[in-house]
Amino acid sequence: MQKSNQNTNIILAEIITIGDEILYGQVIDTNSAFMGAELGKIGIKIKQITSVSDDATHIKKSLDDARTRADVILITGGLGPTKDDLTKTTLASYFGVGLKLDEQSLADVTEIFRRHGREVTEINRQQAFLPENCQAVRNVLGTAPGMWFEVDNKIMVSMPGVPFEMKRMMTDTVLPRLQQYFGLPKINHKVIMTIGIGESFLAEKIADWEDNLPKNIKLAYLPNLGSVRLRLTGFDTGIDDLEAQMQAEVDKLSKIIPEYIFAYGEVSLPEAIGNLLKKHYLTISTAESCTGGNIAHKLTTISGSSAYFKGSIVAYSNAVKVEQLGVSETTLETFGAVSEETVSEMAQNIRQLMKTDIGLATSGIAGPTGGTSDKPVGTIWIAYADAHQTVAKKLNFNRTRELNIEYTTMFALNLVRQSLPEAFRNG
Amino acid sequence: MQKSNQNTNIILAEIITIGDEILYGQVIDTNSAFMGAELGKIGIKIKQITSVSDDATHIKKSLDDARTRADVILITGGLGPTKDDLTKTTLASYFGVGLKLDEQSLADVTEIFRRHGREVTEINRQQAFLPENCQAVRNVLGTAPGMWFEVDNKIMVSMPGVPFEMKRMMTDTVLPRLQQYFGLPKINHKVIMTIGIGESFLAEKIADWEDNLPKNIKLAYLPNLGSVRLRLTGFDTGIDDLEAQMQAEVDKLSKIIPEYIFAYGEVSLPEAIGNLLKKHYLTISTAESCTGGNIAHKLTTISGSSAYFKGSIVAYSNAVKVEQLGVSETTLETFGAVSEETVSEMAQNIRQLMKTDIGLATSGIAGPTGGTSDKPVGTIWIAYADAHQTVAKKLNFNRTRELNIEYTTMFALNLVRQSLPEAFRNG
Repeated sequence: MQKSNQNTNIILAEIITIGDEILYGQVIDTNSAFMGAELGKIGIKIKQITSVSDDATHIKKSLDDARTRADVILITGGLGPTKDDLTKTTLASYFGVGLKLDEQSLADVTEIFRRHGREVTEINRQQAFLPENCQAVRNVLGTAPGMWFEVDNKIMVSMPGVPFEMKRMMTDTVLPRLQQYFGLPKINHKVIMTIGIGESFLAEKIADWEDNLPKNIKLAYLPNLGSVRLRLTGFDTGIDDLEAQMQAEVDKLSKIIPEYIFAYGEVSLPEAIGNLLKKHYLTISTAESCTGGNIAHKLTTISGSSAYFKGSIVAYSNAVKVEQLGVSETTLETFGAVSEETVSEMAQNIRQLMKTDIGLATSGIAGPTGGTSDKPVGTIWIAYADAHQTVAKKLNFNRTRELNIEYTTMFALNLVRQSLPEAFRNG
Repeated sequence: MQKSNQNTNIILAEIITIGDEILYGQVIDTNSAFMGAELGKIGIKIKQITSVSDDATHIKKSLDDARTRADVILITGGLGPTKDDLTKTTLASYFGVGLKLDEQSLADVTEIFRRHGREVTEINRQQAFLPENCQAVRNVLGTAPGMWFEVDNKIMVSMPGVPFEMKRMMTDTVLPRLQQYFGLPKINHKVIMTIGIGESFLAEKIADWEDNLPKNIKLAYLPNLGSVRLRLTGFDTGIDDLEAQMQAEVDKLSKIIPEYIFAYGEVSLPEAIGNLLKKHYLTISTAESCTGGNIAHKLTTISGSSAYFKGSIVAYSNAVKVEQLGVSETTLETFGAVSEETVSEMAQNIRQLMKTDIGLATSGIAGPTGGTSDKPVGTIWIAYADAHQTVAKKLNFNRTRELNIEYTTMFALNLVRQSLPEAFRNG
């Protein structure tokens, strides 16, 4: 949690999402979480998040209410081209203005259609007509432009509900404009990425450091899938060098928990592993059973991963384990597919087959079926192999199938970091 | 969009979540989605979802506002044992009542501690003290009981924010009590899953059908990654058979857009493809370049997928394409990795290597780097091969790397559906 800084003028924001999909639980509202987090980072406090239906009267009432409390109102949803999307016309009627064509928006939507080799349709052309009192916010990823309104020193912004379109508009346009408009005080963030230790154990380990943080620096714990992001927020209270003050605290922390820190800054684990491999000219391949290709997928979401990731064999059936991966039938029969012996062979063989420095393998029971009394659901083996050593590790999870797969992927990637010779380990 | 039915007595609900974690985007609000969906299923319309901070004044204002609009107010969060958790004391002060010990709640919390071999602590004992004007809602999974208030023919229920505790209380107590209290009318939902056609083209194609829907049936478009979910909501206005009335509309729709419908009901594309394969005893393997294992990953998130998915070779480097997948070097040199010829060989070879009925392959430039003037970023080839035919298709995307991968995965899975012989195609 971030506490407001009493010395500065706090800007308050509210988020309004429009559409029955969220109300009826057909869509989970991840947009508000993104917007709340991003606004928090530039020092804007969130007062309230409100989800309302596509109902003009209710939308207008929510806008009125939000304006009594907040300086910034971000609205998402209801900008699609179909009849049930009411946001734009409701905003025009709320402000008592008409719609006018925005040429840039029309050019953008025409370009999107051109790229698909099509003529822009009439209903999509209509999307380029915007309330007269707004500035368009460009949407380079979709057909609905955003709208920026300045009313009584308050900012209201309407954006599409499609997450990647909204995110791009926030990052490219809305956040920078808000910073500029309100002349926001300087806030600095430092993020330290940890893995391999739970939130409460971590909190115990760093309690002394946390208690001794300067008053203008706040700490937040942000756990996600076995990783805990530590975020320091520093408020500029007129000290000489906020950056240096914060870096000194990060340096102290690094000495307390070096083994758990995999990156500084907003770096995902696959990205951190990628950076490590790239830096040392190491290559990797994966042999995946229970993770079903998810490690390869996570590694290849990183642009430039072809420099170190060569490929994977997803060996879901035992036949593929034997025929493509060359796991010995004796090993499979004696120890089973979910065993230290099988997973070690998988890791060793994939690195030889794909001629990589490192081979990484998984074999386990993701569930919900397939468990036995010996090997219940969530029993998982992971292995790392390089030219000198093979390291295998047994994991036990008791979560949903999807989470068992995600956790295994994270732990397997972390095994690379843990198993690399000391000299390579810290990037 | 759903409009309220003027002929029946609609019960309106609001959801209020309390806590800074949601406002600051540290936690995604999945609770409201669950509650919204469950309330919708018993015919309660959600008017608004509101997230506020742990601030007594703001909480009380939200309760006042919600009471002007709704008959049911469900509140989650702020029931922990620590000082930041204000919900219970705020509710008591809101109603102007004191707290009294609830014996059953004390027995429940004592039992939870006993199970862990501990004596109940004083702060947890305090959790059994509830506002005098409420009925306790049992929490068998945690230490904070829920609270059920009946005020002026309106129901207010406070529950913990821990998702599994809240869900259990909803299912066991809150939903049945609400149904009984309001004697609720019937609402029905039908979902039709489509892929391969954008929302606006789809809307044009089915405009006549949509315009002619009976007044008590509403349609919503829910697009996601190249797929559009169509949701019909039917309100029982005393007609003979709502289910039959709605099914008749679904049947009409099936005849208008058969080629785009991949499932009826809430079924994902990987699940629908899985069901299709399982039903016809067909097996599949994938050879993935630009999708990097994501098709295998998506297929294997489905429990039971080992019945039809055998494995994958992720051939990220050309060496792996040649050595593991057996793509001819001549093909690669003549046409390049991103070509109809290469992707067709990949699909044909993987099905032979893994001895499956179907081979599915992808090769393309996911971006943001790697594009050429001939083959810009987003140029992607996908191919399907079975014993009788190979079908290759060129795609063009212009999105982020991650989305290019997700879209390619969806289109490749859809290619299976499109390429299967007619007899297999519709499940």
